[in-house]
Amino acid sequence: MNPTRGFAEGEYRARVARAQSKMQAEGLAALLLTTEPELRYFTGFLTRFWESPSRPWFLVLPAQGDPVAVIPAIGAALMATTWIDDIRTWAAPDLRDDGVSLLAEALCDIGGPVGVPSHMETHLRMPLADFERLKRASGLGFTDDRGIVAGCRAVKSEAEIGKIAQSCAIAGRAFARLDEIAPPGVALSRVFRDFQRLLLEEGADWVPYVAGGAGPEGYADVISPASDAPLAVGDVLMLDTGAVWDGYFCDFDRNFAIGRSTAVQRATHARLIEAVHAGLEAARPGARACDLWRVMADILSVGESAGRLGHGLGIQLTEGLSLTAQDRTVLRAGMVITLEPGLVVAPGRIMVHEENIVITEGAPRLLSPLAGPHLPVIG
Amino acid sequence: MNPTRGFAEGEYRARVARAQSKMQAEGLAALLLTTEPELRYFTGFLTRFWESPSRPWFLVLPAQGDPVAVIPAIGAALMATTWIDDIRTWAAPDLRDDGVSLLAEALCDIGGPVGVPSHMETHLRMPLADFERLKRASGLGFTDDRGIVAGCRAVKSEAEIGKIAQSCAIAGRAFARLDEIAPPGVALSRVFRDFQRLLLEEGADWVPYVAGGAGPEGYADVISPASDAPLAVGDVLMLDTGAVWDGYFCDFDRNFAIGRSTAVQRATHARLIEAVHAGLEAARPGARACDLWRVMADILSVGESAGRLGHGLGIQLTEGLSLTAQDRTVLRAGMVITLEPGLVVAPGRIMVHEENIVITEGAPRLLSPLAGPHLPVIG
Repeated sequence: MNPTRGFAEGEYRARVARAQSKMQAEGLAALLLTTEPELRYFTGFLTRFWESPSRPWFLVLPAQGDPVAVIPAIGAALMATTWIDDIRTWAAPDLRDDGVSLLAEALCDIGGPVGVPSHMETHLRMPLADFERLKRASGLGFTDDRGIVAGCRAVKSEAEIGKIAQSCAIAGRAFARLDEIAPPGVALSRVFRDFQRLLLEEGADWVPYVAGGAGPEGYADVISPASDAPLAVGDVLMLDTGAVWDGYFCDFDRNFAIGRSTAVQRATHARLIEAVHAGLEAARPGARACDLWRVMADILSVGESAGRLGHGLGIQLTEGLSLTAQDRTVLRAGMVITLEPGLVVAPGRIMVHEENIVITEGAPRLLSPLAGPHLPVIG
Repeated sequence: MNPTRGFAEGEYRARVARAQSKMQAEGLAALLLTTEPELRYFTGFLTRFWESPSRPWFLVLPAQGDPVAVIPAIGAALMATTWIDDIRTWAAPDLRDDGVSLLAEALCDIGGPVGVPSHMETHLRMPLADFERLKRASGLGFTDDRGIVAGCRAVKSEAEIGKIAQSCAIAGRAFARLDEIAPPGVALSRVFRDFQRLLLEEGADWVPYVAGGAGPEGYADVISPASDAPLAVGDVLMLDTGAVWDGYFCDFDRNFAIGRSTAVQRATHARLIEAVHAGLEAARPGARACDLWRVMADILSVGESAGRLGHGLGIQLTEGLSLTAQDRTVLRAGMVITLEPGLVVAPGRIMVHEENIVITEGAPRLLSPLAGPHLPVIG
């Protein structure tokens, strides 16, 4: 059964209240938000129109009171379907003044300092020249948001977890059908295309992310687009997906041997699953991201250069903490993360496995269907 | 027959040479580029991994000599498959220094001033705090890129036009199959999902953008996600897509009457097509974007508040000029644009039609299969 689409207004009000309490503690009068995940988190404004770079979108979150949306007129009807009442629009794109005066006015009504997410994983989605104009026009002080938005987003509500679980279930069903699309001889590009089709058939709203690779000794990386090279017997095929249901991502992968598996593939896969289980054992409230990294890295016998072995997940494919030796973020119940161990199989060739979990007061709950130690063979 | 994937190295060298000649004229020592379309335009680096916000990516384009890629190590293998030789990596995400020192060093080798795209439609895809650190660490002057990158991208090569034509042909075939998926009674959300499936079946690499709406008097906007409301006899259904083939978008829509059409729907559709034809007549080198807007707006009897009636298209769903009363951009052969007239059908309800064309020395060439004046009926 599908969870409900959208959230109750109370969920948004709780998110705003949490941010506002931190803003008051940090002495910030307002937050200025400009990116899709930031706006959606506080308003529920969900559209694929962000694909167009032509227009900036702004949300002003005051330390007290309701948010103010300052947006292109083309978004007014959709924003009016959310819980946001104060919606101010202009006819974007406007070459003379693309919302800057309207935004400055909204900010001046509230005052400063204005917090803007400025740290790792953030960016400002408006033209730099307009940001400078905004500073001059408003006369306000602008500073970092002190990580407030990222901090709020890191701990998910039960409703959010339900949506991520739904995305994971959809991808799990698509992976279960992989033997329909990946026999030997089929081009990898065709497999990618058909895998997206399976994800849609199984209920994904859309498929923002698919990656993967194939080869007898693993694959070169986990970010390349598919080539037209055909799958061969003896290849290991990896597919990784961020499919979306109601705006929430899954992010996990699966490996499949094509026709038959090799001893190295089987051993590598078993080791990756072993690392996942070590991660599951360690994933408790109070543990740090670097602690999870350590137990997995020990199983894999890898060092810091192996990169991150997992990350936060939710409104974005990756968000929040990184499972690295450096990251001392403390796990809390409600955090949704990936466990993503990887191993070098041969020079320049790797295998990677990934699962999605939610931290609870006890053992973590699996959101993706946990893979077993035996590498599946298809085709 | 499909065009070839990728571009010859000469195409990238020509793009760089064009930018460098403008940089020299403007007195810029380097450009700093941070976004997906900017990096891909000059390097060919094509991956869906940009969906993850965790890591910044940098390309430094000096006024003379070859570009320097300063990127996370996870991208090294893929970047090495492009024509770029100078690839410098760090183990991102690094909480201590996420590429800033490495980037500052690369820029200092070249000197300033450094142009950063800062105008309409651009943003800086790196944390603001790291940009400030970069300014301090490099000691260089940073300024706007004078629109150089946008200017280069606006005029497409024949190879680029071939890829956009391929995307348009794919979407055209998917639209031709719409009667398979949109009978009365099917939920709009199901139609959206199945339309994405059709696009993939017809050859799209992926489907970054789908929008649409339905109703007896048109739809509320062109950006909302699909609801679960079922299509009804007498609705007009609009679907709009940005499907991608080898990194290039189409962006056109189609309207269909469900079961039967109404007189208002038919008349509105005919008027929209009439406006498209007026746009086609006016779309000649030397005409300005505002001239195209004017001839279409006259047919539609709309004023400036109607918003833009088309835009540039290519590596992004929307890029470059806007067909508005303000935009005085002069059309040149090789520009790919959309003609996108819209009309209000009833209070808060609209109909929109869109085609994709390329400006040539003579009459524009249609890239999307030009719709006729009669509103098609399906279901």
